[in-house]
Amino acid sequence: MLTNRRTIRIEWGDCDPAGIVFYPRYFEMFETCIATLFERATGMTKYEMLRAYQFAGYPVVEARAQFSAPAKFGDDVVAETMVKEFRRSSFDVHHRVFNAEKLAVEGFETRVWVVRHPDDPARLKAQAIPEEIIAKFTQA
Amino acid sequence: MLTNRRTIRIEWGDCDPAGIVFYPRYFEMFETCIATLFERATGMTKYEMLRAYQFAGYPVVEARAQFSAPAKFGDDVVAETMVKEFRRSSFDVHHRVFNAEKLAVEGFETRVWVVRHPDDPARLKAQAIPEEIIAKFTQA
Amino acid sequence: MLTNRRTIRIEWGDCDPAGIVFYPRYFEMFETCIATLFERATGMTKYEMLRAYQFAGYPVVEARAQFSAPAKFGDDVVAETMVKEFRRSSFDVHHRVFNAEKLAVEGFETRVWVVRHPDDPARLKAQAIPEEIIAKFTQA
Amino acid sequence: MLTNRRTIRIEWGDCDPAGIVFYPRYFEMFETCIATLFERATGMTKYEMLRAYQFAGYPVVEARAQFSAPAKFGDDVVAETMVKEFRRSSFDVHHRVFNAEKLAVEGFETRVWVVRHPDDPARLKAQAIPEEIIAKFTQA
Repeated sequence: MLTNRRTIRIEWGDCDPAGIVFYPRYFEMFETCIATLFERATGMTKYEMLRAYQFAGYPVVEARAQFSAPAKFGDDVVAETMVKEFRRSSFDVHHRVFNAEKLAVEGFETRVWVVRHPDDPARLKAQAIPEEIIAKFTQA
Repeated sequence: MLTNRRTIRIEWGDCDPAGIVFYPRYFEMFETCIATLFERATGMTKYEMLRAYQFAGYPVVEARAQFSAPAKFGDDVVAETMVKEFRRSSFDVHHRVFNAEKLAVEGFETRVWVVRHPDDPARLKAQAIPEEIIAKFTQA
Repeated sequence: MLTNRRTIRIEWGDCDPAGIVFYPRYFEMFETCIATLFERATGMTKYEMLRAYQFAGYPVVEARAQFSAPAKFGDDVVAETMVKEFRRSSFDVHHRVFNAEKLAVEGFETRVWVVRHPDDPARLKAQAIPEEIIAKFTQA
Repeated sequence: MLTNRRTIRIEWGDCDPAGIVFYPRYFEMFETCIATLFERATGMTKYEMLRAYQFAGYPVVEARAQFSAPAKFGDDVVAETMVKEFRRSSFDVHHRVFNAEKLAVEGFETRVWVVRHPDDPARLKAQAIPEEIIAKFTQA
């Protein structure tokens, strides 16, 4: 399955008074890593994808991370992201973040492909992931 | 075990282009909920605790959350936080976030009590949680 | 003119490796202070206002702040917010944040009342602020 | 004077329910732009600089920005940053952010070079900027 690898600089504003990454920032990183992975698969930014496939996003239903080594501002970490499995309307993502070639964070997310609810645009509703999207990941 | 309950207003800046909470914000909320729980137990802010007990914080080693219902800006959610178990130098936290009395998010964290490493202040090192702190949670 | 006063706890996650508030967080605070001020004036959350008045928000066109004293996690600051002037489709906001009764931050923002552009919903367009809204601030 | 130019992808998590950048994120961007500019001048990350020059950072005393065009997730903006003037212990920074070659945001910051106060490490104190640092900007 298609894997994306990005180098991410840890910034001053990502870190807390202990001088290490404030852990919710890793989940922000995961969001960006997934958008980058989809862009690599489809050739479209998330904005373009939302328009092309008429959906509202892929919110998280479950997220989990293990933090084995801290990273501090000025560190360049490498994040590897891949989709582990596509199901009808949901998919599992696996992230591994390395700092100085050592596994620092491992993350797992389950996300759902959603559209606006026809009866109430304020609500979201799961929908089948387009086959075309899934194909782009497996063919890669 | 001592449980803390807080009402949190979801703000515009907590939400993403889908109009719902950008999920890393829930982990930021968890951080605040724990600080509030410790403050309720000890009568000290985290800043005061760090000075009084000479430690460097309680970073996360594992975090997990399940998101069952979205929340949007203007919603007032209620977060309930409790420590499930204290071990020698680590502890487990359980969070439940309710929106309109419905469970919206459930979170689990394992955190470690750390001090600066004596040989290198840039490194952190686990240390036994003071008995006095643990007692304050169980007596409450 | 109606003034809103809120006490805000500075959290661990608001602070940087120097142990003081990472300054962009003050602008996040300003956003929340304005939403609270409008809620006090209108009795509606921002979400309810967007629906009731069919507009898309009040984005910032100019923001400025002076930082005269730092605040650290555990501090409770008091933020005072008021609209200085309403014009046809824009308004000026003044924020003062006090820490231990000392002025710590002073902020000024100019914001514009916008709607979605009729020709392209991705674009925003200035519109006259409803008289009814302005009246609620001046009558208060 | 040395100018740094960076391309920054606007991410989903940078944007608010209106689908455009939540404006405090621009100030976070400015922080990163300055760190990058100093790194280009000195060849050191901020972490390395803090250690090499024994200082505690360069917090902001005044910040100002004008927002003339919105940016949305998926946009690649270009940020240009330069120091306008170095004084004894403070300096002025100018940022210009372009979206599709159009000026979208212009920012101005005044920052102070600080050290920990010798009498109380919780306090910060202005100090002269090392001549060596200033020279690296002007020689570039």
